[in-house]
Amino acid sequence: MVVIVEVMPKEGILDPQGVAVRNALHQLQYAEVQQVKVGKRIILELDTNDPVAAKSRAEEMAETLLANENVETFRVILPEEVSA
Amino acid sequence: MVVIVEVMPKEGILDPQGVAVRNALHQLQYAEVQQVKVGKRIILELDTNDPVAAKSRAEEMAETLLANENVETFRVILPEEVSA
Repeated sequence: MVVIVEVMPKEGILDPQGVAVRNALHQLQYAEVQQVKVGKRIILELDTNDPVAAKSRAEEMAETLLANENVETFRVILPEEVSA
Repeated sequence: MVVIVEVMPKEGILDPQGVAVRNALHQLQYAEVQQVKVGKRIILELDTNDPVAAKSRAEEMAETLLANENVETFRVILPEEVSA
């Protein structure tokens, strides 16, 4: 089954990629852009059918490898939790 | 208001970052990981209160700058469309 890990820069942490994207959008005349944050969206396909186990393993993977909790936050979601 | 742009590698397109993450997870004994795709989650704060306009501008920005439609797909969502 599929699990999604969303990793974003922490509030208040410098996000150089976000700043670069904002500057580029301003140069393209998108003056309404006030702030940009760039994070990661990681889709994991796991060999399990148990959503509780999948989520808990993905949280472990995020803590161990996928996110740097000094500067990033993450959350693990199952695709059915996303309505859009 | 805030708009989210999710950019993912296209189906069938080589995703070296995803392969690298899968290999690293295997080395960490997460043997259940079958496939990994790594994309971007971009949060845009726009100086507008019109959700329809915000979404349409963000789609333009994604086409112009945020996504490379040769190898990536994107979708624009408003935070209230995400239930989790």
